[in-house]
Amino acid sequence: MSLSISSSPSPSPLLFPPPKTLTLKPLTLTLDHSASRQNPRLRLRRAAVRSAVAIEKEVPEAERPDTFLRSSDDSSHSSSVRSRFEKMIRAAQDEVCAAIEAADGGGRFQEDVWSRPGGGGGISRVLQDGGVWEKAGVNVSVVYGMMPPEAYRAAKGVKDSSEKAGPVPFFAAGISSVLHPKNPFAPTLHFNYRYFETDAPKDAPGAPRQWWFGGGTDLTPAYIFEEDVKHFHEVQKQACDKFDPSFYPRFKKWCDDYFFIPHRGERRGLGGIFFDDLNDYDQEMLLGFATECAKSVVPAYIPIIERRKDTPFTEHNKAWQQLRRGRYVEFNLVYDRGTTFGLKTGGRIESILVSLPLTARWEYDHQPEEGSEEWKLLDACVSPKEWI
Amino acid sequence: MSLSISSSPSPSPLLFPPPKTLTLKPLTLTLDHSASRQNPRLRLRRAAVRSAVAIEKEVPEAERPDTFLRSSDDSSHSSSVRSRFEKMIRAAQDEVCAAIEAADGGGRFQEDVWSRPGGGGGISRVLQDGGVWEKAGVNVSVVYGMMPPEAYRAAKGVKDSSEKAGPVPFFAAGISSVLHPKNPFAPTLHFNYRYFETDAPKDAPGAPRQWWFGGGTDLTPAYIFEEDVKHFHEVQKQACDKFDPSFYPRFKKWCDDYFFIPHRGERRGLGGIFFDDLNDYDQEMLLGFATECAKSVVPAYIPIIERRKDTPFTEHNKAWQQLRRGRYVEFNLVYDRGTTFGLKTGGRIESILVSLPLTARWEYDHQPEEGSEEWKLLDACVSPKEWI
Repeated sequence: MSLSISSSPSPSPLLFPPPKTLTLKPLTLTLDHSASRQNPRLRLRRAAVRSAVAIEKEVPEAERPDTFLRSSDDSSHSSSVRSRFEKMIRAAQDEVCAAIEAADGGGRFQEDVWSRPGGGGGISRVLQDGGVWEKAGVNVSVVYGMMPPEAYRAAKGVKDSSEKAGPVPFFAAGISSVLHPKNPFAPTLHFNYRYFETDAPKDAPGAPRQWWFGGGTDLTPAYIFEEDVKHFHEVQKQACDKFDPSFYPRFKKWCDDYFFIPHRGERRGLGGIFFDDLNDYDQEMLLGFATECAKSVVPAYIPIIERRKDTPFTEHNKAWQQLRRGRYVEFNLVYDRGTTFGLKTGGRIESILVSLPLTARWEYDHQPEEGSEEWKLLDACVSPKEWI
Repeated sequence: MSLSISSSPSPSPLLFPPPKTLTLKPLTLTLDHSASRQNPRLRLRRAAVRSAVAIEKEVPEAERPDTFLRSSDDSSHSSSVRSRFEKMIRAAQDEVCAAIEAADGGGRFQEDVWSRPGGGGGISRVLQDGGVWEKAGVNVSVVYGMMPPEAYRAAKGVKDSSEKAGPVPFFAAGISSVLHPKNPFAPTLHFNYRYFETDAPKDAPGAPRQWWFGGGTDLTPAYIFEEDVKHFHEVQKQACDKFDPSFYPRFKKWCDDYFFIPHRGERRGLGGIFFDDLNDYDQEMLLGFATECAKSVVPAYIPIIERRKDTPFTEHNKAWQQLRRGRYVEFNLVYDRGTTFGLKTGGRIESILVSLPLTARWEYDHQPEEGSEEWKLLDACVSPKEWI
């Protein structure tokens, strides 16, 4: 595919071929060209990206199954962490969607259920052009896949070695959501909680099976209302403090660092909590922590929406919200590793890109007036504040 | 920076940390944190991304200099290819901007001139919210930089070796433009022509200095008017045929391949011509070819705009144009190597991102009705056609 052999015609002031060794795609992409003689819709569906990390193409399902776990996983270990985590995220999806529909008034979630022949699948729910939300997506998914040995080594912090090694089977389950309201004074919310396991690599006797938890909840307003941001961070801190007093300060900073847009020198929003690769605590404790975080989404967010959803606004306010949505798109498409990885590995595209706002805007060299409300938001995105 | 150590909370159905060895950023990014106690505007300017490919931060200039070449380049070789290429792209910028302003009626280009202390610089011109164009950017730039030896080897097609080697000085100059009209029946145009040179690597005696040309012109309509697309491709073919009958068929296919969006299984638009790393022809001939291509932009595009700029349209037509603008954003931010490279190497951000439309739209799982005008455009983006 010429992506990997040709360089760019973009308006970059760096008008030379990006050094090829520096711009090789992380995964080898090949396309199903056999699709090219069929109905475009089929083609679109079939032109799925295949990659070094083998992910089967998903197929639509008419009904929600009780579980997306492989029967071997499910029947034999209904009390396993994977099984209990799936139950937790599916309950959280129901709870959040019910709260969103209640607050939205008119809007209803559209549901897509899908599965993969080899096991796993997901439920994508999207509410579009509702009374309060422009676009609200709440997805759960369960993935069985094979991970390159280098990835397993990297996850374990082992230096990549040249010795031959086979791919490592993995299991991943998670809930992920982005909620974009219409009113420019009502903030966007994102949250994602996930659990990950690898089997022991067949070629490395004695090498341990890995597991870890990751996730977070963060707030992206276009305008700052101190009481809103304080309330949001307080709820995050309460959830953290129930488990470890070090969690909130540590995960708050991690969140500020993760959602940084280097080319802008600013964060996507006003943060919250973010953590990953968390396995140096008791597994039951971390399952409880992830559950508590998911339960905290509604009380952290809905009260803010109730306060702001009907605030009168001007075209100027809307345009600023749209510019911030543009930053959201920049972060998700350029830096967010789940998005960029998902796009390149044949994940369900519509589920991945539901994180993008319904509409976004880019103005050339826009600078908010110093001291303005827009400037204050930008200032807080450039240098993160302690809200509580 | 945590980007390189934390994984994603995005709504990807692949809810596990992207294998770190596969997702290491191509370049090491470090930030100017000393900026964090200053005025946000300054901070924004100063929070420039530095990288392994050293590019100095640009500084604004009050006036256009006669040349952006280093005086050593300029005085001693005013007939050099670098010097003549710079003259050509600056003349092309004037010609295209004049034609755009004339066709737009009300809109005027805003100009930003910038330079880099060590040599090089550029002129960015943007017309925003005009009579015909929503956003039109026409940039020229000259860049002096240092290229990692692996990049030089890759450019030469040499397998990367483990032997130590020093960085290779390079020179690049180019013109780049994206023109987004308001009317959904008037197509977006992109063109970019660039010339590249490396010095001989100091550590590799006898290794040749490299040079090559790259570029192309492509059309991205939201609706197909056969006569428009034929006209556009015919003008590209005429420019190519003056130099080599193999150019049009070869560069037309290269364009279809380059502007492919793998995760969508479709192209960004209806193509045109694209070429890169072109050095296996006489250098004078290629300079003439790039010049001819640049001269062909106005006759290829403006007649189409004149025909479509005032065509009545519905909200439905506008929403479809906005969805296609969303695809444009996806291609530029995820795959366009100049954009992604530029963002990570401290290029002038506002010049790089002027390629993004003023507004864009993402709807969940949008499928145009089979046989509709929208479906026909999508079909042509999925399976490229021969237009002439």
